[in-house]
Amino acid sequence: MRTWWKRTDEARSGEGVDWREAEEFVRLHHAEVPSAGPVEARLREVAAEIEQTGTYTHTLDELTFGARVAWRNSGRCIGRLYWQSLRVRDRREVDTADAIADECVAHLREATNGGRIRPTITVFAPDRPGQRAARIRNDQLVRYAGYERDGEIVGDPSHLGLTREAAALGWEGRGGRFDVLPLLIEVKDHVEMRELPADAILEVPISHPHYPWFGELGLRWHAVPAISNMCLEIGGVCYPAAPFNGWYMGTEIGARNLADTGRYDQLPVIARRLGMDTSSDRTLWRDHTLVELNVAVLHSFAEAGVTMTDHHTEAKRFMTHLEKEERSGRVCPADWSWIVPPLSGALTPVFHRYYDDVALRPSFTHHRGL
Amino acid sequence: MRTWWKRTDEARSGEGVDWREAEEFVRLHHAEVPSAGPVEARLREVAAEIEQTGTYTHTLDELTFGARVAWRNSGRCIGRLYWQSLRVRDRREVDTADAIADECVAHLREATNGGRIRPTITVFAPDRPGQRAARIRNDQLVRYAGYERDGEIVGDPSHLGLTREAAALGWEGRGGRFDVLPLLIEVKDHVEMRELPADAILEVPISHPHYPWFGELGLRWHAVPAISNMCLEIGGVCYPAAPFNGWYMGTEIGARNLADTGRYDQLPVIARRLGMDTSSDRTLWRDHTLVELNVAVLHSFAEAGVTMTDHHTEAKRFMTHLEKEERSGRVCPADWSWIVPPLSGALTPVFHRYYDDVALRPSFTHHRGL
Ligand code: HEM
Ligand code: HEM
Repeated sequence: MRTWWKRTDEARSGEGVDWREAEEFVRLHHAEVPSAGPVEARLREVAAEIEQTGTYTHTLDELTFGARVAWRNSGRCIGRLYWQSLRVRDRREVDTADAIADECVAHLREATNGGRIRPTITVFAPDRPGQRAARIRNDQLVRYAGYERDGEIVGDPSHLGLTREAAALGWEGRGGRFDVLPLLIEVKDHVEMRELPADAILEVPISHPHYPWFGELGLRWHAVPAISNMCLEIGGVCYPAAPFNGWYMGTEIGARNLADTGRYDQLPVIARRLGMDTSSDRTLWRDHTLVELNVAVLHSFAEAGVTMTDHHTEAKRFMTHLEKEERSGRVCPADWSWIVPPLSGALTPVFHRYYDDVALRPSFTHHRGL
Repeated sequence: MRTWWKRTDEARSGEGVDWREAEEFVRLHHAEVPSAGPVEARLREVAAEIEQTGTYTHTLDELTFGARVAWRNSGRCIGRLYWQSLRVRDRREVDTADAIADECVAHLREATNGGRIRPTITVFAPDRPGQRAARIRNDQLVRYAGYERDGEIVGDPSHLGLTREAAALGWEGRGGRFDVLPLLIEVKDHVEMRELPADAILEVPISHPHYPWFGELGLRWHAVPAISNMCLEIGGVCYPAAPFNGWYMGTEIGARNLADTGRYDQLPVIARRLGMDTSSDRTLWRDHTLVELNVAVLHSFAEAGVTMTDHHTEAKRFMTHLEKEERSGRVCPADWSWIVPPLSGALTPVFHRYYDDVALRPSFTHHRGL
């Protein structure tokens, strides 16, 4: 099943670090990275620091390893083959709205990399006992506004709430279909708003390799999917602001964001232009149109020189990942309903097998009331 | 996940009926069907019979109710809206291979109904303590043979084993792509083979509404999907031979049986005829071809006057079913990975919600070593 609230936990800021989680992580790190040195010495350090302060500070090595393993443990992510290549930007000293916004912009620029997208995470300050760190309210760094006017929705319907919040803070959207929302950053007990500079956001206009009219639909999407509202949990420490990105798999845009009736709902519009017979579901006009939209998305990203994967390629890569994990003697947690692509599920090898859906740590977690 | 062995139980023939299961069922029946009379009297009867014989005999009412509720409880079935209309053929007195084969033929004829397919179940003798009833080894009444010749497979690869078994019993397949296998019926400790008469099996040749060459591919499929290797469990009693059928949802044939690389694997063939660019997965030629194959399947069944549903319609019906069940105060068990269709999953409303995946009784069960 596909809504995120199943696996949520209550946020745990305020409490001290659970020693068992810290120990489990430190032992994992030293087991997988022998060059980290003797584990007992590090465990004594960590224990002493927790004793004194209720928490402890990860070394840069631990942070990097923890973030990468959190990705490796993300049971919903089909893109995990390259988990070891995650670039980790350590910004734990950063905790003001201005500095956080600046670093998000820097993250976007470095991750975008002129189109050759680099999987990247920026880790801001962790929660500490009695001290709630900053959070980003946007679910991704780049999100399009949604406006309701006279019962009609313009833009992305799934961001009506975020748009309303921004408006309440004084944001004036232009009322367009693809207006990038400002960042809403929670610091202490209030929310601050920061606009993202347009030149930090690469976008791709959607066209079709065979239908010249497709471009006239005015569809576009941003190049970098950077999830910004999940908590990175490493060894009992919560990093509530830790935006991370990979590159897009085409179906995320073509079979969900632009297609879902609760999102941009473009299939009826495209079907009309394609001249499809929409008189009955049985003509499969939706299925046919969906394929054309996905062809357009993949084509447009390629034309723009922006990294994007298709679901066939990515499913094969994931099978390779599973084999590698198995050879390493590790369980690979995976959630069938998220791993199987929303388009032509049974055509991909990931459809035809069973997975362990265990929760391993470190992890990315949706906290209720984050 | 989609393989059936997750939920299997060991077969339980040999043991007596569990009184708690019998009681639970009788109470359910009387609660839902008040006209069944006072429950306590019936419970005393059942208890006495179990005491004496180790099992008990369902009334025709109980059998009918039990079979329908087993369908209602089938978490993997999207077609449950009409569960109350299941036709129940009581053939519990039938237990020889000849009579079972005859009744399977009669089932096919009645269920086929000239194309206006009727959901039907035929219930043969139950297991009794120390007395294993007959079983049908074929997973469906109508199955196509698969032959391996010089490393090439002709026919349905998923029935190589069944075909080999039939051959060992003396069956001589014609070596074609769509040869209907004989029934393999287990009685006592041996397996008997019975051919199905050709005129009991309605088949549909597959053609496409726009591409005349499609018919030249020589594809066809049978009209009635009748699962024959699941055990119907009612109130502690196991009916191991209880073939049941609905009508097909197009994707079962178009997105699985004829498309899977482990089945008829027709996409490369069709794509070539369509002139698709198969040089890269990114052209989505598989996805495109899959839609055309599914269009062909739906079209052909309609042309032939054979009941078939499409995944959009059936998903909507299932949403109606869920609402009705909720209004009745019942939990509706459902397994996301089976309910969501293998084609354009996210286009159907069933994709976008969460289900209870509880095991309720009565039920249809795959028994290991059935
Ligand atoms: C490198 C390319 C990557 C690809 C192609 C990829 C692909 C995907 C896809 C298709 C999903 C499902 C999204 C949905 O259906 O809404 C997903 C989910 C997820 N991915 Fe990845 N991913 C990539 C990189 C990453 C990275 C770098 C991380 C973390 C460091 C990550 C962590 C996750 C997590 C936590 C989820 C679940 C999100 C949620 O619960 O809402 N992925 N990924
Ligand atoms: C009336 C039309 C029906 C439709 C359209 C329908 C549709 C489906 C579909 C699409 C599946 C998944 C098949 C697969 O992916 O392999 C399924 C599974 C199932 N259906 Fe139905 N069904 C119908 C009638 C019935 C009836 C009459 C029964 C029993 C009385 C039934 C019991 C089941 C069961 C037990 C499964 C799971 C099979 C397994 O575990 O292998 N269905 N159904």
